[in-house]
Amino acid sequence: MSRTIARARSETGDPLLLTPGPLTTALSVKEVMLHDWGARDSTFISINNFILKRVTEIANGGTKYVTVPIQGSGSFGVEAMLTTFVPSTGRVLILINGQYGERAKRICKIANRKYTVYRTPEDKIPDFEAVQRVLKRVPSITHIFLVHCETTSGILNPLEEIAELARTYRKRLLIDAISSFGAIPLDARVLNFDALVASPNKCLEAIPGVAFVVCRNESLKKTKGNATTLVLDLHDQWRNFAKTDQYRFTPPIHVIVSLSQALQEFAREGGAAGRLGRYQENCRLLVRGMRILGFEPFLPDCLQGPMVVTFRMPTAARFVFSTFYNNLKERGFIIYPGKLKVAKSFQIGCMGHLYPEDMRNLLVAVRETLTEMKVALASAVSEASET
Amino acid sequence: MSRTIARARSETGDPLLLTPGPLTTALSVKEVMLHDWGARDSTFISINNFILKRVTEIANGGTKYVTVPIQGSGSFGVEAMLTTFVPSTGRVLILINGQYGERAKRICKIANRKYTVYRTPEDKIPDFEAVQRVLKRVPSITHIFLVHCETTSGILNPLEEIAELARTYRKRLLIDAISSFGAIPLDARVLNFDALVASPNKCLEAIPGVAFVVCRNESLKKTKGNATTLVLDLHDQWRNFAKTDQYRFTPPIHVIVSLSQALQEFAREGGAAGRLGRYQENCRLLVRGMRILGFEPFLPDCLQGPMVVTFRMPTAARFVFSTFYNNLKERGFIIYPGKLKVAKSFQIGCMGHLYPEDMRNLLVAVRETLTEMKVALASAVSEASET
Repeated sequence: MSRTIARARSETGDPLLLTPGPLTTALSVKEVMLHDWGARDSTFISINNFILKRVTEIANGGTKYVTVPIQGSGSFGVEAMLTTFVPSTGRVLILINGQYGERAKRICKIANRKYTVYRTPEDKIPDFEAVQRVLKRVPSITHIFLVHCETTSGILNPLEEIAELARTYRKRLLIDAISSFGAIPLDARVLNFDALVASPNKCLEAIPGVAFVVCRNESLKKTKGNATTLVLDLHDQWRNFAKTDQYRFTPPIHVIVSLSQALQEFAREGGAAGRLGRYQENCRLLVRGMRILGFEPFLPDCLQGPMVVTFRMPTAARFVFSTFYNNLKERGFIIYPGKLKVAKSFQIGCMGHLYPEDMRNLLVAVRETLTEMKVALASAVSEASET
Repeated sequence: MSRTIARARSETGDPLLLTPGPLTTALSVKEVMLHDWGARDSTFISINNFILKRVTEIANGGTKYVTVPIQGSGSFGVEAMLTTFVPSTGRVLILINGQYGERAKRICKIANRKYTVYRTPEDKIPDFEAVQRVLKRVPSITHIFLVHCETTSGILNPLEEIAELARTYRKRLLIDAISSFGAIPLDARVLNFDALVASPNKCLEAIPGVAFVVCRNESLKKTKGNATTLVLDLHDQWRNFAKTDQYRFTPPIHVIVSLSQALQEFAREGGAAGRLGRYQENCRLLVRGMRILGFEPFLPDCLQGPMVVTFRMPTAARFVFSTFYNNLKERGFIIYPGKLKVAKSFQIGCMGHLYPEDMRNLLVAVRETLTEMKVALASAVSEASET
């Protein structure tokens, strides 16, 4: 066996980020930030226009949708979407199976938006029969909110089926697609959502600092005066873009320009379909390799999204997570402490500027780390039995 | 005279940004962004802790103040400050002499915060006698909000005198110091404010994407439950930092790391006092040179802050602003369209990684541009009469 220590290889020498995000990005995506632009100058405005147009295209929004950016993180986009689209007279059904669903509920509560919660465990998708019973029992529901990929567990929620329910029951659909946008193909013409939140720093592989809300024009038009804040008012932001092509308030210019570069690399990889292929391969190698080493994924394979995998924390006495984390960090791999409510866990991401070779290197590093820690986990599968 | 065209010199070849912000930054400040960091990893956390501590120190906040960051632009910080610090039972006196004061009013209106407005023209500072009459007439006022440098005109409002009034009348002081922080020395122990908003992309010469609210501990503690949003709740953000050292929601990591570099360069320049000296010299050269060329500053010298200068739009028939703007941009200088209500105007900034040499080059470029445009403005001063 090799005596050398397995180390991550990255373009910059930095540790690879195997987290739910922010992620490792290509050096080329960061290099374009080595400039300064005037926020109200035509050079930046045309870069920003390109991005807004492309984000709408990635959602297949055609001319019926428009993308409105909002400064801040993805959660700023979610709060902007919920408070702009759900009027004070409305009621939103929040489907929850993780902390991002819980966060939407908290946003609604603080903003005095009426809501009904339908909650499933962190490893279960919504039950359609049950959701329908809620929709029948509470006819005042006007909107349905769904987290597409709930990164608390990495579960992929059944967006198309929920969109079908929304259509059947004539409810407006609001989607948190932060962790799926750019890897799971999304079609606005099929899903017919009112609004969808995307982020640059997940599957689009750019850097954090802004969120995007892809909005149906017809619905957005009717949201005037709904918002409970100035800075998160998507209607006002949109009107200002329509009039001036400009942000109302200083945009995170460098962040936005980095996304323009990332979108070019996204196109070169074949868009969401191409990216999905790479993430699926990353995920397949990771889950298979970790199983061989004795780790147990939290989710059954059929519910596992290819963006981030949650593993149950081993119960072996010598397995100390902080040691495991730090040893992997020394080898150039940054993983993520788990946030499940139901079980102790940790997460390893498959998104970002990561390739199958990186996952293979990670697995060697995990194996070496376990050996150093003198931990031998009981593996349910053997290397030979795997195909 | 020289036949060569005057051009800006910048480290990156980009046009220099002579605007109210975002500004030209040092290449070294941008170069540190060529990496990726885990948002919850100790490497980033320690960089962020350094920044929060330094921002508090720059305000001379000692142990009585804490800096709470908020994702987004400066206006996100202002909305966070107003909605977190002014309770629904309070009333804020908003001193307005430009669009940033107007914006604070709009924020309060949307958030259902009671407010009283005291407005002066864009070229006038508040009248102390008049402010006192308002404070006596409306005893329910609990807070006073002031924009320190109102960039609409570039006027420097009398912060120390308003702080004195706040002390006398036992009102809490809230400050928008976005355009002054880092160049005008501020002393929390003297001003005794409840909260103050600062931005990285003005006098600290870093890039946009986050705001900072320097908060008095004793006052911040009492704000629990005040906020009208989740993402802009400074109390919740602060509690989470106190518990975990972490952001509640994904921070703009690269933006924050760039500020850590900018703060080191800020210290090397001698802090706010050192930076003020450079900006004052930039401003002095600019105002003097533009006067010689026949431009008229909007503000009297005694009210002019050294960050950005507003010039009245020349009325000469051949002076077309878009031509003037584009010719200067071709020479590598980006200036700014004015936003005054009372007069047509444009702005030229003195902040950012700009040095007296840049202002001299700009003045040559302005002179050449006027010649090309065949515009001769009547100058009130001659070059020889200037000292």
